[in-house]
Amino acid sequence: MNYLLKNLPVRTQKPRTTGFTMVMDKGLSIREVENFVDANAEYVDIVKLGWATSYLTNRLAEKIEIYRDAGIPVYFGGTLFEAFVIRDQFEDYRKVIDKYGIRFAEVSDGSISLPHDKKCEFIRILAKDVTVLSEVGSKDAAKIIPPYKWIEQMQSELDAGSWKVIGEAREGGTVGLFRDSGEVRQGLVEEILTKIPEDRIIWEAPQKEQQVWFVKLLGANVNLGNIAPNEVIPLETIRLGLRGDTFDHFLGDHSF
Amino acid sequence: MNYLLKNLPVRTQKPRTTGFTMVMDKGLSIREVENFVDANAEYVDIVKLGWATSYLTNRLAEKIEIYRDAGIPVYFGGTLFEAFVIRDQFEDYRKVIDKYGIRFAEVSDGSISLPHDKKCEFIRILAKDVTVLSEVGSKDAAKIIPPYKWIEQMQSELDAGSWKVIGEAREGGTVGLFRDSGEVRQGLVEEILTKIPEDRIIWEAPQKEQQVWFVKLLGANVNLGNIAPNEVIPLETIRLGLRGDTFDHFLGDHSF
Amino acid sequence: MNYLLKNLPVRTQKPRTTGFTMVMDKGLSIREVENFVDANAEYVDIVKLGWATSYLTNRLAEKIEIYRDAGIPVYFGGTLFEAFVIRDQFEDYRKVIDKYGIRFAEVSDGSISLPHDKKCEFIRILAKDVTVLSEVGSKDAAKIIPPYKWIEQMQSELDAGSWKVIGEAREGGTVGLFRDSGEVRQGLVEEILTKIPEDRIIWEAPQKEQQVWFVKLLGANVNLGNIAPNEVIPLETIRLGLRGDTFDHFLGDHSF
Repeated sequence: MNYLLKNLPVRTQKPRTTGFTMVMDKGLSIREVENFVDANAEYVDIVKLGWATSYLTNRLAEKIEIYRDAGIPVYFGGTLFEAFVIRDQFEDYRKVIDKYGIRFAEVSDGSISLPHDKKCEFIRILAKDVTVLSEVGSKDAAKIIPPYKWIEQMQSELDAGSWKVIGEAREGGTVGLFRDSGEVRQGLVEEILTKIPEDRIIWEAPQKEQQVWFVKLLGANVNLGNIAPNEVIPLETIRLGLRGDTFDHFLGDHSF
Repeated sequence: MNYLLKNLPVRTQKPRTTGFTMVMDKGLSIREVENFVDANAEYVDIVKLGWATSYLTNRLAEKIEIYRDAGIPVYFGGTLFEAFVIRDQFEDYRKVIDKYGIRFAEVSDGSISLPHDKKCEFIRILAKDVTVLSEVGSKDAAKIIPPYKWIEQMQSELDAGSWKVIGEAREGGTVGLFRDSGEVRQGLVEEILTKIPEDRIIWEAPQKEQQVWFVKLLGANVNLGNIAPNEVIPLETIRLGLRGDTFDHFLGDHSF
Repeated sequence: MNYLLKNLPVRTQKPRTTGFTMVMDKGLSIREVENFVDANAEYVDIVKLGWATSYLTNRLAEKIEIYRDAGIPVYFGGTLFEAFVIRDQFEDYRKVIDKYGIRFAEVSDGSISLPHDKKCEFIRILAKDVTVLSEVGSKDAAKIIPPYKWIEQMQSELDAGSWKVIGEAREGGTVGLFRDSGEVRQGLVEEILTKIPEDRIIWEAPQKEQQVWFVKLLGANVNLGNIAPNEVIPLETIRLGLRGDTFDHFLGDHSF
């Protein structure tokens, strides 16, 4: 760090299992990736190439390599997994992640209807080769999944071999964990936390207010995902109580 | 493309007259343009230097050349045309586009009051030298133009020599085709389409929900404009049914 | 400028004391700073490293130097000052700004409770070494400061040695000068202007509608702050009446 500030919350260091930041890249160019890792590498634990954007990425292998050389593993968004599965091309999907040397896979059913035992089967198969992240929650705002179901699914997916489960939100910060307004479904989050260990969950929280909410609830070292590339340092300041939103949260009482 | 996915909608290829993507650059630096074309060139048909931002652009000729070398023509936003016209400097405008080797011109009246026959006269004059895009719709939210008038104007502008007509929206996605909330004026769009051939229209649609709406209505190869540079690849996935929003749209019935 | 347009408002030139644009950098990488200054340097008067983001900036000294070489001084956001003060590390703060060769300091109390005479005391101390900008207004939406208090504080801070006072808004454009919706608290602004000279105030106005409002009220050469890096050229066009929003404002009556 550039100077000493006393009494800051202690952040975990890479490789992190808590205090984890997952960033979403939705189409950065090679040089933008170089810029990004130059400024942010130590604060980023993994990068998701958002949904199926990797299909269209110029110089994809090179891009993945730049991230990797900066100590940041890359994986494909769950929608890509779904796009292969819905086309009966699951084996092709496995070949693609193998071809690009990807060591993580996301299993999700945000856009397709997938019986839950079938989803767990995909987790089991993929977990033999790679680290699996599985995502719970629909991208369809009309599909409200009750809390007990979130818990049931998260637990069985962890049992099937998921390293962590992801609580769904869109890139824009709606659906899944959030209401249309972007507001957190607090009761849902709190109920999940009564049953699933906090360190096994990554909360997708693209909006600042959502990040602030989770940091206030779970502390500096909460696992957060779908962070925009230019919000990584702002998020890090939120975690450390160095932005107005959480400034008071990590301080005791101070007066003059 | 980086891997094979079956049953994707077929996209048109450059040079496109349908499935056209017009991007708005509101002040990218030279190196940002290089980054942009590296990642996006094949998905971009034309770049508009937004409104009169070109007045302030450092190394403008160089910037235009980088786009051109990547196979992307550049033109000046309609507000610049209007800024010259309102000052009685139309001849100067013609010299400027000539000086920079611009091969397209936008004729609009979003910020000025221009009798429609005068507007068509400008189209006729410019069409002798360059390809004309003309824009219908006001930037003034209070000026509601009824659908029959949109159609009348679009038709007479095409007759006067416009290559395509543009349905107006602001950079932020309001006015013209959209309500203050950003919601599409559906009846307007549908009525326009009863009279004006789809391939002659470019719909300005900067917001994701607007892009999704047009792709669902008119398919993968709808002409869209005012796309932000970092939304080109996301838009391309929307066109291909590779993002949650249109994932189902291009698939038949699938079940497990 | 790239071409001649008649009858544009006359902009002040660097070094400016009015018509001042303060940009907020919330974590740009080195190369992004290079890109930024290449396209924008002549329109930017000062850069604020937002709140305490500088704590986490890679190659901070190098970054500051690139700005400086482009003729743009840099300073640390007020939240950083507050983070040092609340920890009883004010002397450390002075050493940090000295170490990085910073020639400006922001004194604020947006996140801490600081008796106003104590705040003025900090201004007096810092003003001996550097140019002080002091900020009035809370980041806490619940703390509404009445207009007479804004004026009183601004005046006593100027008396204590502030070069200019800053009217607070968040990066997102809420609190302080603005309502939760981002709307300007017009009565507040107008009352302030009855007492404090316009050229001594910088209005934080990150949202386009806010910038438009201030340009319409105070003209092309109003002092504005918290401008996002990619909004500098758009703002400059707003100042010059070269964007739809202020197109009419600087023109007399024109008709055909």
